[in-house]
Amino acid sequence: MMKVIKQPGEYSYVYSRYLDPIDTVKPGEEFIVHTKDAFENRITKETDLPSEVLDEYVNPQTGPIYIEGAEPGDTLVVDIIDIQATRDYAVSAMIQDFGGLTRTQTTRLLHDPLPEKVWIYEIKDNWVTHNESLSFPWRPFLGTIGTAPNLEAISALVPFDHGGNMDVPDVKPGNSIHLPINVEGGYFYIGDCHAGQGDGELCGGALEIPAAIKLKFSLRKGKTIEWPRIESPDELMAVGSARPMEDAARIAYAELINWLVELGWDELEAYQALTQIGRLHVGNMVNPNYSLVAKINKEYVYKGRNKA
Amino acid sequence: MMKVIKQPGEYSYVYSRYLDPIDTVKPGEEFIVHTKDAFENRITKETDLPSEVLDEYVNPQTGPIYIEGAEPGDTLVVDIIDIQATRDYAVSAMIQDFGGLTRTQTTRLLHDPLPEKVWIYEIKDNWVTHNESLSFPWRPFLGTIGTAPNLEAISALVPFDHGGNMDVPDVKPGNSIHLPINVEGGYFYIGDCHAGQGDGELCGGALEIPAAIKLKFSLRKGKTIEWPRIESPDELMAVGSARPMEDAARIAYAELINWLVELGWDELEAYQALTQIGRLHVGNMVNPNYSLVAKINKEYVYKGRNKA
Amino acid sequence: MMKVIKQPGEYSYVYSRYLDPIDTVKPGEEFIVHTKDAFENRITKETDLPSEVLDEYVNPQTGPIYIEGAEPGDTLVVDIIDIQATRDYAVSAMIQDFGGLTRTQTTRLLHDPLPEKVWIYEIKDNWVTHNESLSFPWRPFLGTIGTAPNLEAISALVPFDHGGNMDVPDVKPGNSIHLPINVEGGYFYIGDCHAGQGDGELCGGALEIPAAIKLKFSLRKGKTIEWPRIESPDELMAVGSARPMEDAARIAYAELINWLVELGWDELEAYQALTQIGRLHVGNMVNPNYSLVAKINKEYVYKGRNKA
Amino acid sequence: MMKVIKQPGEYSYVYSRYLDPIDTVKPGEEFIVHTKDAFENRITKETDLPSEVLDEYVNPQTGPIYIEGAEPGDTLVVDIIDIQATRDYAVSAMIQDFGGLTRTQTTRLLHDPLPEKVWIYEIKDNWVTHNESLSFPWRPFLGTIGTAPNLEAISALVPFDHGGNMDVPDVKPGNSIHLPINVEGGYFYIGDCHAGQGDGELCGGALEIPAAIKLKFSLRKGKTIEWPRIESPDELMAVGSARPMEDAARIAYAELINWLVELGWDELEAYQALTQIGRLHVGNMVNPNYSLVAKINKEYVYKGRNKA
Repeated sequence: MMKVIKQPGEYSYVYSRYLDPIDTVKPGEEFIVHTKDAFENRITKETDLPSEVLDEYVNPQTGPIYIEGAEPGDTLVVDIIDIQATRDYAVSAMIQDFGGLTRTQTTRLLHDPLPEKVWIYEIKDNWVTHNESLSFPWRPFLGTIGTAPNLEAISALVPFDHGGNMDVPDVKPGNSIHLPINVEGGYFYIGDCHAGQGDGELCGGALEIPAAIKLKFSLRKGKTIEWPRIESPDELMAVGSARPMEDAARIAYAELINWLVELGWDELEAYQALTQIGRLHVGNMVNPNYSLVAKINKEYVYKGRNKA
Repeated sequence: MMKVIKQPGEYSYVYSRYLDPIDTVKPGEEFIVHTKDAFENRITKETDLPSEVLDEYVNPQTGPIYIEGAEPGDTLVVDIIDIQATRDYAVSAMIQDFGGLTRTQTTRLLHDPLPEKVWIYEIKDNWVTHNESLSFPWRPFLGTIGTAPNLEAISALVPFDHGGNMDVPDVKPGNSIHLPINVEGGYFYIGDCHAGQGDGELCGGALEIPAAIKLKFSLRKGKTIEWPRIESPDELMAVGSARPMEDAARIAYAELINWLVELGWDELEAYQALTQIGRLHVGNMVNPNYSLVAKINKEYVYKGRNKA
Repeated sequence: MMKVIKQPGEYSYVYSRYLDPIDTVKPGEEFIVHTKDAFENRITKETDLPSEVLDEYVNPQTGPIYIEGAEPGDTLVVDIIDIQATRDYAVSAMIQDFGGLTRTQTTRLLHDPLPEKVWIYEIKDNWVTHNESLSFPWRPFLGTIGTAPNLEAISALVPFDHGGNMDVPDVKPGNSIHLPINVEGGYFYIGDCHAGQGDGELCGGALEIPAAIKLKFSLRKGKTIEWPRIESPDELMAVGSARPMEDAARIAYAELINWLVELGWDELEAYQALTQIGRLHVGNMVNPNYSLVAKINKEYVYKGRNKA
Repeated sequence: MMKVIKQPGEYSYVYSRYLDPIDTVKPGEEFIVHTKDAFENRITKETDLPSEVLDEYVNPQTGPIYIEGAEPGDTLVVDIIDIQATRDYAVSAMIQDFGGLTRTQTTRLLHDPLPEKVWIYEIKDNWVTHNESLSFPWRPFLGTIGTAPNLEAISALVPFDHGGNMDVPDVKPGNSIHLPINVEGGYFYIGDCHAGQGDGELCGGALEIPAAIKLKFSLRKGKTIEWPRIESPDELMAVGSARPMEDAARIAYAELINWLVELGWDELEAYQALTQIGRLHVGNMVNPNYSLVAKINKEYVYKGRNKA
């Protein structure tokens, strides 16, 4: 029977090695993790004002999960096999001082805050529907996923080199996420499942759902990466998370160049190839770091080369 | 016979109302414009060092073209009908202090400059090929297109609210570009054709070609827009150009919200829709302003509404 | 008798070589220029709403003034000898979508604009006074000063490598401003005098005054600089103008290193010296480019060296 | 006899509530803390290459120190009474990928790293001297100071709302630093003493010294602040730490406005006052967040008001 992991007590609001693992998973084993939505499942109707129903912290994570055999310097590969909503509705909301077109904690301005607002969406027949205009296909993915840093405990709202709150729609079933292992056992966390999201997560709230996620871990022993990578059946991707946004773009493309160099490319030839065929889109433009995704189609990676 | 416009004397390196129009075009009339490549057609082989063969200014523009009947406050719609290369090769190059992963004139650092480097690509059978690895499909578009500002004369290297050097691959045959008219006659400029380019134009040089471009103008009298827009058969898009990159993202999405509001959407409902289904990719990350493109599929624009 | 230059017709809203010089000045000659305030002297009482009394453009400049003998590649040194207000009051105002703690044209947000507001200050006995709390010493300087670019015509609101709207309080009597000469005759412009200003010009409106300014030009023939510099009796300074603000900081310090290298310093030793004794403050945080000023006291420049 | 606190075991490289306090201090009590230099005292001569002698982490902190009676929601006021170097030399260094004019971990570029370089300075007679050119007055201050966040453990290299690695020269003897208390006991950390530093800490290494620092704590019970503040005999200051740098500037001035509002000012009048008389300089332009300091002279704070 497949292992099912549910958070035994309080969820975590940090990616931290300072917490006790809630479970242990072996590489190669398929298992299921249950997550709450980013609002802790507290918003259930459109009259629930976020400032009233939410607690101090949001974006609860399931974890840490101990990965058997994981050691600093390894790379964790997470195959996302399946995502199921564990509720028949999704929630989006504008919460104060959070979003892409509002003042925030750091972009401090003298304006009054934007209004709070909640949208409830029904999930049915592979569509997520609020009303006739706001009706979108079911495209589930994981907003927040990562491993513990070695030294820091990083808020679950922050994406950085350990993964975290990247809000990148490419973290979806069928794709593999590569994450650095910084501590023994890796201390894996996951949460913030979305029934769908546009690039940028503009208002700050995607189609938030609690979920049951089927995963499989594998380890690349002694293989070190600096920033998260994603492999889809067709593409190689690297995710950079930083501010200002151009630094996230630089990281994403520089890391993708690194990946190509590992596959045998010359650095400047890779720079040239990505100039002509690379793609670069915005994962989030709302979190403490912005996340950008640089991609290349595998067709252009392996042309004129032996397949890696 | 179709009107063919070639630059009679010197090309222009600015988007300026202070130059004399080289020709006049009527709305509704199809015509052809010839452009040089961004390197002024001066790089013809891989041993041509940019610092030696290039002049002080690059990115020569054909124009200004006077648009009959255009008045400040109108919107110009440019249908891009066709692009033909007027040479059988494309050129990419790393030029000093220009590019996405290098120090620049404003990101001033103490490093030595990166090396200069030239790649020549053959154009043949709808492919653009340097060698077996660097071989890409023919996907032509216009890197630089726009109208004159009212007051300023803006370098042809700079994208801003008048259009200019956006380097957005969606400016391609089959799509319509909407540009603000700021001066009587509009003073349209065009140049910098690319045989293809990835998002970001990473090394600073796309697949640069001289070209013959078939266009048609139409005017929306008295309809004012603040930033360039693009309409494809399937999508509505807005382009924001600014630094830091997050400001370009904010402009792009804010303008797309404006467009939806003009089509009958409520502002916060549009903010919500773009959160869930909008897309946001990078046109350029190398020019004095970065250009980002926000998009929405028309299917989601007109759902639950009468078609506009 | 001293030459007095007043704008003969319309003021200029651009730094442009495309306008006709209004007068010619010889290096070495002291002369007086009259300028309007940044609001075109249109705000005269606190009930004057900027959105009603102001025209489309603000920040009118006196110029262009032709500098005899100035050629591209020279450096212009402007000695600011004296500034006199030509009115007994100064004006500050919050105008819409302009300022350090508000949404702007490029930091586009969904907030309503901040309110408009005007403050009138009496100038008397070397104090500038609105009420008991808002009363500041008379510390006049020039907000906008520069030469024409070679190619572009740049809005008088924008600071860049030609000078322009830097809003740097060090541009004051007793100091010398070094500006690049880009076109024959230099095409000097000046305007936007302030009776005083804090670092950043936070709300977007300093203590704006019309003024009579006594200046003297000198030329350093064949000496090229890339960005404006300032010399006070005690300090050497360089001004960088860019976005994001860290790029303005990089430019300012990199240019000051260049200056030290010209004076005989080793580059990395200059980098070290500025690390320990350099100063870096914000001129403006409100204009299309931010301006930062890097400084070093001359005592540390010439220590252990022959005085330059 | 005065309490003297030395780190009993390993120094800390994070601002963390997850470590055990090394000592307890009562408000009102003067005490002395010993700190290592930012390089862990490992660089002792100019041939010590940082990449060889430094360990994985730098900037060791003394702490956490438990503050008796401190509760979340209080403000800690730290009087800096005295700083003594505990060594007769200071060290500055260029370490790889760290500094204001170099590529970094997030401003990722394809350049080779800048060279490593070490400067040793003798401390004597209130001067800090490397050679005749590099000789600066003794102006000691604390580069890193702060309290533990509630949730996160933040690297000692990062400045944010808890204080941390601000590298602000105003954190000096005679001044008081106000810090938020986020956890019971506050968990105070301190380190990174500098014998002097210019604005920005340009090359990334100030005049680094180990030190004995005399401090006194006091608590403002139930008084909450959002970002660090500094009070000198003459000035009120607020420190903002963020990227891009303009966000650090916005935070600093917005917080200083908040302070003035607490003292009875109207918000827009405070915005106006800081426009005309505020000062804004750069603490650091090298750390993961930039730190900017906004200031106002007390003379302008209390004019026309009863002294607070």
